[in-house]
Amino acid sequence: MFNVEKFLHSDALNPAMEWKGYPKYNFIGGHNDSESIPIKSLKESIEKIILREGKTLSKYGLESGPQGYLPLRKFISKQLNLSAQIVSSENEILVVSGSLQALDLVNETFLRKGDTVIIEEENYGGTISRLKRLGVNMVGIPLEHDGMNVEVLEQNLLDLRKKKITPRYIYTIPTIQNPTGTVMSAKKREILIDLSKQFEIPIFEDDCYADLLFEKERPPAIKSFDTDGYVIYCGSFSKSIAPALRVGYLIADWSILSRILPYKTDAGTGSLEQMALAEFCEINFNSHIKMLRSELQKKSEAMCYAFDKYFGSSADYKKPDGGIFIWVDMPKKVDTSLLYELALREGVAINPGNEWSINANGKHKMRLCFGNPSIREIDEGIKLLAEICRKEFGLPTKIANL
Amino acid sequence: MFNVEKFLHSDALNPAMEWKGYPKYNFIGGHNDSESIPIKSLKESIEKIILREGKTLSKYGLESGPQGYLPLRKFISKQLNLSAQIVSSENEILVVSGSLQALDLVNETFLRKGDTVIIEEENYGGTISRLKRLGVNMVGIPLEHDGMNVEVLEQNLLDLRKKKITPRYIYTIPTIQNPTGTVMSAKKREILIDLSKQFEIPIFEDDCYADLLFEKERPPAIKSFDTDGYVIYCGSFSKSIAPALRVGYLIADWSILSRILPYKTDAGTGSLEQMALAEFCEINFNSHIKMLRSELQKKSEAMCYAFDKYFGSSADYKKPDGGIFIWVDMPKKVDTSLLYELALREGVAINPGNEWSINANGKHKMRLCFGNPSIREIDEGIKLLAEICRKEFGLPTKIANL
Repeated sequence: MFNVEKFLHSDALNPAMEWKGYPKYNFIGGHNDSESIPIKSLKESIEKIILREGKTLSKYGLESGPQGYLPLRKFISKQLNLSAQIVSSENEILVVSGSLQALDLVNETFLRKGDTVIIEEENYGGTISRLKRLGVNMVGIPLEHDGMNVEVLEQNLLDLRKKKITPRYIYTIPTIQNPTGTVMSAKKREILIDLSKQFEIPIFEDDCYADLLFEKERPPAIKSFDTDGYVIYCGSFSKSIAPALRVGYLIADWSILSRILPYKTDAGTGSLEQMALAEFCEINFNSHIKMLRSELQKKSEAMCYAFDKYFGSSADYKKPDGGIFIWVDMPKKVDTSLLYELALREGVAINPGNEWSINANGKHKMRLCFGNPSIREIDEGIKLLAEICRKEFGLPTKIANL
Repeated sequence: MFNVEKFLHSDALNPAMEWKGYPKYNFIGGHNDSESIPIKSLKESIEKIILREGKTLSKYGLESGPQGYLPLRKFISKQLNLSAQIVSSENEILVVSGSLQALDLVNETFLRKGDTVIIEEENYGGTISRLKRLGVNMVGIPLEHDGMNVEVLEQNLLDLRKKKITPRYIYTIPTIQNPTGTVMSAKKREILIDLSKQFEIPIFEDDCYADLLFEKERPPAIKSFDTDGYVIYCGSFSKSIAPALRVGYLIADWSILSRILPYKTDAGTGSLEQMALAEFCEINFNSHIKMLRSELQKKSEAMCYAFDKYFGSSADYKKPDGGIFIWVDMPKKVDTSLLYELALREGVAINPGNEWSINANGKHKMRLCFGNPSIREIDEGIKLLAEICRKEFGLPTKIANL
């Protein structure tokens, strides 16, 4: 038999495990509410677009070229102007296969081993794992209730300058930060742009949750304050419509986009999905996300209720302003990596905080997603998690309704 | 203004040019026949699948996990068994975003700078450019009318072994080889497997045109002779259904696939396209490709007719057995790279041979695709190309109907 091991290099990634299905209580992954998938209007949109433009599927890139389906880019331009005050033309937009491809493309363009980047110290696990894999140094900035601590950011920029290190970008998830859920204030967004210009460091603004604020108004994007082309903006339809549609986008000055585009070597993002989204969004986007926000808010409340009920004062968290997850701070004696392992054996999946943080506090934190499980599953799963936690760590001391 | 140049590394790829639309006579790119896109049945398939399974779009990977939509993998397994005698289970199939992502994934898994691979010396431009970009040494094997010259292959394997160089794979496009159009005989496929086992070198079999043989029967895939897991097989729906649907697949032993999968960091290939294809193909695949082959054969004949008419004996080519392109050998005085430039100014796009060959003969060859242009455009475009060629190189000496 062929022995693949002999053909792998020393830096090979760990092998994938065979997929065995989802755990019963699945509180991980950016999955969305199944009942909120707009099946009927998606179907109608696809029917229309395929009858009207189906023939164009014969060409790579349709009639739109390598930046993606033009009507979709036009919608993105219009919508982001409306919702986030970004001024961009369709030529400054690159449609990508989800915001994960956006991360990979920006990293491939700008990062090489040994480079330094600035990130929020509690961060999306996929960002942290990508940067680790690339051998990039991460400088972590702490978060406050209104986003990145900009004084610490400035100090770090000064320190790095002294050391003659130029960070390749400042990465931020300003709106419903992952995992903390914080929303950066408009004032801090302006300060960030000022620092970016002053130190001549680009900002990579990852805004893929921004459509999901339950009640708060969405602040203008950092990109909206950017008059000098410092911001690379990234968004996605995964959270607002459906994650299995792999469509996201980058918005940046063409001088930047033209350097990123050559790294997209997949001959374009799936066109049927782009066409379906363009047709759907033009009519339905705003009414759809209004409905979705309301459904997610109910699930968020169910999650908070379950934590209060089963964990009581043993779990500390901030009630989400939007999105699909909560970030829970546990007492120091609770090691969430161990809790993760124990819980998974019982069919409860959580994100241990050390994968979502580059500081030591992550060890006692955990992220739980509430977008996909039903309200009943949320209640049952958190109850089970509390029982497992109490058995191992003695906390919570008492569990309601047992 | 932000200066992106300061943030790029020395190995940055050349910037993209702004897209200005397709040339009038577009004989490049793997585009397909617009009239053959099965609009009506695609629409019906999507309607059905989205009503039946639309809710599953709420999950990354649907209910199928990271290897791709299970019914599509089952179809691929069944179809490849039928058409190419490959025996594979759905667990040995990874759905990818077109065969270009397949190339990237296999290369990311196996190749590092300075590595050596074996390829057919006339080859797909995208393969050559990828390998160049990776800094990989290419050992070219000449092609005969029935595929790779296996004696030369064996000699090269012996020479490399003497030099203690282990080639990372033998890459071949056995069926409708790109750009030569040759079809490797079944006998040579068996010899290739024997050599692969004898020298313990994996084969990367790129079979994305195999569904498009006009009349000849498709030989068994090299993979079908592979009892020891040496072959990584790659296929695509781009050529058989529509290129704008970005769906391809890899078939390999799980020991190999599990090492490739971690490099697929885009959270899966677009699900709507996978679902649409699975539903469509189950009923329509075989009747569709039968119709498509017949339409492409007409275009192939139109292309050959136009070459005979306008280039006469100045152009040498082998009539295609299938696929979407012809590979034309011009007299030594014709530099096709220059012809490419001159023709593009007049709205005629061709692939100059030096991008599709790693030997010096490519300089006088060119590849022309006939899948997308109409029969009228083929006639007009080749006439114009002949005029441009005669003006610059004095060949063809006389142009019919002028």
